[in-house]
Amino acid sequence: MQESRTFISRDEAQAPFFAGIDLGGTNIKVGVVDDLGRPLSWLKIPTESQRGPDEGARRMAEAVREAARQAGIEYRELVGAGLGSPGTMDIPAGMLLEPHNLPGWYHFPIRERVSQYAELPVTFVNDANAAAYGEFWVGTGRDFHSMVLFTLGTGVGCGVIIGDLLIEGEHSHCAECGHIIVDSSPTARMCGCGQPGHLEAYASATGLIKRAEEALANDTDSVLHAWLAEGRRLTPLLLAEAAQQAQDALALELIFETARWLGIGAVDLAHTIDPDGIVFGGAMTFGGADDALGRAFLDRIRQEFRQRAFPVLAEAIKIDFASLGGDAGYLGAAGIARLAYRRQSDRPPAGAS
Amino acid sequence: MQESRTFISRDEAQAPFFAGIDLGGTNIKVGVVDDLGRPLSWLKIPTESQRGPDEGARRMAEAVREAARQAGIEYRELVGAGLGSPGTMDIPAGMLLEPHNLPGWYHFPIRERVSQYAELPVTFVNDANAAAYGEFWVGTGRDFHSMVLFTLGTGVGCGVIIGDLLIEGEHSHCAECGHIIVDSSPTARMCGCGQPGHLEAYASATGLIKRAEEALANDTDSVLHAWLAEGRRLTPLLLAEAAQQAQDALALELIFETARWLGIGAVDLAHTIDPDGIVFGGAMTFGGADDALGRAFLDRIRQEFRQRAFPVLAEAIKIDFASLGGDAGYLGAAGIARLAYRRQSDRPPAGAS
Repeated sequence: MQESRTFISRDEAQAPFFAGIDLGGTNIKVGVVDDLGRPLSWLKIPTESQRGPDEGARRMAEAVREAARQAGIEYRELVGAGLGSPGTMDIPAGMLLEPHNLPGWYHFPIRERVSQYAELPVTFVNDANAAAYGEFWVGTGRDFHSMVLFTLGTGVGCGVIIGDLLIEGEHSHCAECGHIIVDSSPTARMCGCGQPGHLEAYASATGLIKRAEEALANDTDSVLHAWLAEGRRLTPLLLAEAAQQAQDALALELIFETARWLGIGAVDLAHTIDPDGIVFGGAMTFGGADDALGRAFLDRIRQEFRQRAFPVLAEAIKIDFASLGGDAGYLGAAGIARLAYRRQSDRPPAGAS
Repeated sequence: MQESRTFISRDEAQAPFFAGIDLGGTNIKVGVVDDLGRPLSWLKIPTESQRGPDEGARRMAEAVREAARQAGIEYRELVGAGLGSPGTMDIPAGMLLEPHNLPGWYHFPIRERVSQYAELPVTFVNDANAAAYGEFWVGTGRDFHSMVLFTLGTGVGCGVIIGDLLIEGEHSHCAECGHIIVDSSPTARMCGCGQPGHLEAYASATGLIKRAEEALANDTDSVLHAWLAEGRRLTPLLLAEAAQQAQDALALELIFETARWLGIGAVDLAHTIDPDGIVFGGAMTFGGADDALGRAFLDRIRQEFRQRAFPVLAEAIKIDFASLGGDAGYLGAAGIARLAYRRQSDRPPAGAS
């Protein structure tokens, strides 16, 4: 039922400690980290969303206690927990509204409920922002003062950090940069959200597959025709295989086209935020830095970015892969709990004059 | 040589006081405001940039002293000055780099020099950000927690405020939102900055005139043909006159097309920042809220925005005109000086343990 692994020991760790909770439609990941963002323990439990949000909140709190046990710390040494959750949500109210991945967990006061069960102060952010904060705190962005993270998968998620400020938006809709308009032409592709021309309609897995289907209809040379005839499914992974194992020109061009759209999106963020770095993570990074295809993909993003950004920014802004993989979410959630704890500690005690 | 007008009296005003300096290629505006952002005095002197940056800094400092005299305050009651300047610039270093509008004022430590001559701490921001902070502090955005300002003129300027944070960027290039890519097609228009498809290439005065020239080449009905034959110049004002006085369909369509591009730009900012409001100011607002054409222009921006933004944001984010006109710059610069003063005052005195 439960995977787990342990990282640094209690003796190496620096108090205080924070729990990070990464709530997903399939699994919940929970970790305990020290004040420097180093994990002491990590575990994963199935979400079992059909059991409802209150039971979910109870099980998250239980997982936090278990993670504290595995970390070898006293529960009272844990001073806060951070929860990263899929949307839609009302962040200031700590409410889940209508999360797509959690059917039935609607209009639920999840922050308060987890806080009650866990007997801890709980911070609440969206999952893309949690991942962004994770990469900012202890990942690729650890030396940055400000950063944008694009998370590439079925959709295109985004998080924006400026200083120690996680930009959440006034209506819990900040950094939905998958939905910036990159194509305003009458023939623009339709995004999953129902609007035309968004970055996500071009650069997500969904967008890539759509472009691949169309390109295959006008192509006879690609090895993909034969593979699909064998019953294989058209996925980003299949395109990567065709590009790498079969040097398939069409597959490579489709992957590079994705990179060009991301380069355009990165320019828009650079000209709006001017961050230290723009970082790309998620499943659809074609193996990332460990893979020749991933590195070629990143080079194409950089190429488009450098060609189109202001020269100063083309040179100064770092374009790179994320480095924490699936750990970014719980690490970032814990980091946000730490920010709240520090802000709290700076305040005079209640009732002080 | 010098216009000036006075606003609230010393008796009504609330100390401390701040000077705001709006440095432009033609004029320098200087005002003194109280702690609530209400101006006590205001004056304008010609920039006379040919006399060089050091002389400029000296004259700005003199203008601050004169504005303090006109405000009826003791100079020592003035606790800081804010300088808003055209770019390019290095904000942390307080340096002008190569400002287009100030030939010869290159690589000049303007913040320090104005500070020396004025014997005041001086903050330094770019002019678009100063105007944005002015509208945020005491203009259209005074009830907002976060705001985006687009300044429409020869170019498209932008400023982004989140909380009390003016987003300046890591390389002094934040909020160059005139240069987000709104057209990625191969036929995209070239922006003044040399890159294709930027918002500024479509929605600035320059972009509008370019579009008008092209449209007139394919049109025979417009009254503009006759007006241009009479030797009148094709300007945004002439298009406004044709649209209003002559009900010219082509002119109106060109103006509304500008609004549609701005609506697209506003969606990108909404989906990136999720602010309380997105505000449009500057010379190219077609009379603004005081004019039927201005109001129709704003309606078209809103229409495009509401059609393309996430439904929650389409409803929640206010789209409006700026309200401070040419005063936004010096008011905002003074407001930024006030922010710095407050931050400074929160700190323990130097040497305290």
